[in-house]
Amino acid sequence: MQGKYRALWLNDENFLEVIDQTKLPFSYETKVLKTTDEIVEAIKDMTVRGAGVIGSVAAFGIYTACMEVKSYEELKEKALLIRESRPTAVNLMWAVDKMMELLKESSNLILDAKKYAIELNDEEALESQNIAKYGADIIEDILKQKNKTRINILTHCNAGWLAVIDEGTALAPIYEAKKRGIDVHVWVDETRPRNQGASLTAWELTQSGVNHTIIADNTGGHLMQRGEVDMVITGADRVSANGDVANKIGTYLKALAAFDNDVPFYVAIPASTFDFDIKDGVKEIPIELRSEDEVKYMRGVDSDGVVREVLITPKDSPAINYGFDVTPARLITGLITDKGVCKADLEEIEKKFRG
Amino acid sequence: MQGKYRALWLNDENFLEVIDQTKLPFSYETKVLKTTDEIVEAIKDMTVRGAGVIGSVAAFGIYTACMEVKSYEELKEKALLIRESRPTAVNLMWAVDKMMELLKESSNLILDAKKYAIELNDEEALESQNIAKYGADIIEDILKQKNKTRINILTHCNAGWLAVIDEGTALAPIYEAKKRGIDVHVWVDETRPRNQGASLTAWELTQSGVNHTIIADNTGGHLMQRGEVDMVITGADRVSANGDVANKIGTYLKALAAFDNDVPFYVAIPASTFDFDIKDGVKEIPIELRSEDEVKYMRGVDSDGVVREVLITPKDSPAINYGFDVTPARLITGLITDKGVCKADLEEIEKKFRG
Repeated sequence: MQGKYRALWLNDENFLEVIDQTKLPFSYETKVLKTTDEIVEAIKDMTVRGAGVIGSVAAFGIYTACMEVKSYEELKEKALLIRESRPTAVNLMWAVDKMMELLKESSNLILDAKKYAIELNDEEALESQNIAKYGADIIEDILKQKNKTRINILTHCNAGWLAVIDEGTALAPIYEAKKRGIDVHVWVDETRPRNQGASLTAWELTQSGVNHTIIADNTGGHLMQRGEVDMVITGADRVSANGDVANKIGTYLKALAAFDNDVPFYVAIPASTFDFDIKDGVKEIPIELRSEDEVKYMRGVDSDGVVREVLITPKDSPAINYGFDVTPARLITGLITDKGVCKADLEEIEKKFRG
Repeated sequence: MQGKYRALWLNDENFLEVIDQTKLPFSYETKVLKTTDEIVEAIKDMTVRGAGVIGSVAAFGIYTACMEVKSYEELKEKALLIRESRPTAVNLMWAVDKMMELLKESSNLILDAKKYAIELNDEEALESQNIAKYGADIIEDILKQKNKTRINILTHCNAGWLAVIDEGTALAPIYEAKKRGIDVHVWVDETRPRNQGASLTAWELTQSGVNHTIIADNTGGHLMQRGEVDMVITGADRVSANGDVANKIGTYLKALAAFDNDVPFYVAIPASTFDFDIKDGVKEIPIELRSEDEVKYMRGVDSDGVVREVLITPKDSPAINYGFDVTPARLITGLITDKGVCKADLEEIEKKFRG
């Protein structure tokens, strides 16, 4: 299976090829994205998703756009389309802005964009490896403190290698812990309405041979009350200067439960996730409002193996579908970044990442 | 549509007939339960569900069992089967025990059981009407305090007339508020894994013409942060002597969010929901563990109107499915009972309900 442990790559014809994540876990299919419009559509319809992967696709999207334009001025318009394809992910904007900055003086847009996008991708892989290392150290510490040999980690949504090059953010420490010989078990939040946990995270962990159990999003609090969760690790789409964390809707509820039960709650992010323009995340981070159909319809395979979409509510009942929520810094034990672990605290974040 | 606003009734042949709630909201079908085995099966497979309705079905179940036995001694065995059909609902045990107590001296089991079951049912209807009244008074108070005309109420699972005779518990104050001319809007938690909110509550509210919006279970915390929830009302399956509340899994997470955002969190119950034998609900209330298939498979209608069950996870990923959690009394603003509103507090509960 080509690209099994990667969410995207350049194919033999130098076009961006991605795993179609809307088809998982039912079938493994890839898509070649040859135009800016296809890039934008793939981000919008969640063929690709996950903060880091969206950033990478955006970087290769600029490269793709370069094939369609004659000048940097023309490229700017295409860049704007990509930049606005989804509102919450700061990596998307960051990657587009970075690529555009790098290309400002370029005399060969296509060649340079390809080089810079690959470099960005490689940097992200290195960040993931660092997050893996720092996070696995925390896992070892918790096991030592508790004098246990098996760790139960709860995660929400998907922040593995389908979301962030190359082993993800939230899942990177888990993969690293497994490599270190630790007995890891993951509670996988289903993550309604798009089910990224039940479909993507469970699939990824299965591919990677990591022990896991899927739970309804409602279940995490009860498991914590029973003492069956040793730590929570999630990813984030945006972290404000004061350490508030925008992540998949429902993250806030798990953070509340973790706080109420003294369960350490960590958020794993590359430093590019910080948005220093936002001082108060809870009040200021814009939250994406998505289609009600994601709540009302569910996709799965029937007993004949056919993928079907079914309506699960009364046809005429309205639904509302916020994609994210913001977890206040006060509920977060620490941020696991590629530059080390840090408190979710304005001063510490500024000192460490803004220097 | 016969029985539209009732979950169960005696049919013309004097057998218990119930709405098959597993078929909602896709089709309205009823089932006639003619034997103890059919009663037990209907409770187990959730053809009937909801604390009150389970209690009523159990009471009529004893009547049904009377048709199969020759003596009170024989009836005891049947009663045990009904009593053990589900572990968490205290109303089930309460109704069976009450019926058996009433029938102890009976010389005509069938006739007496029918009479007592109908009486129990009528008492429950009266309880629901009282809960409606006390709850609607609170709704009026909140609107007055906030100087608003429209109230947004979040509810979890289904505690309406499909769950409790005759207008439910959590939904009874909502129906009553509507009758009083109040502009009510309900946030309906989907309530995974069985989707009682998205299917039953949304269907019930549609039938009753109440404004509502379905949300993923993950969404409630975010709505509270935005100030879009004025109060939460849920039902309960069991309340311990100290006021801890066992209710559908996920209730605890909503209570945490309500507490964190100063949103009043009420639990509406008939007094029969108290279990005075349990002093510490969080530690002692047994929690039902249900089949993992409820998490892994989802039922809905396809575009041709055919009801289908689809697998929504990787086939080999395990899932775990706790049916309930326990919300600690400290997170609960008040208990709306048929005997008035009361704090979730050992002393006040003992004084009011054990006197």
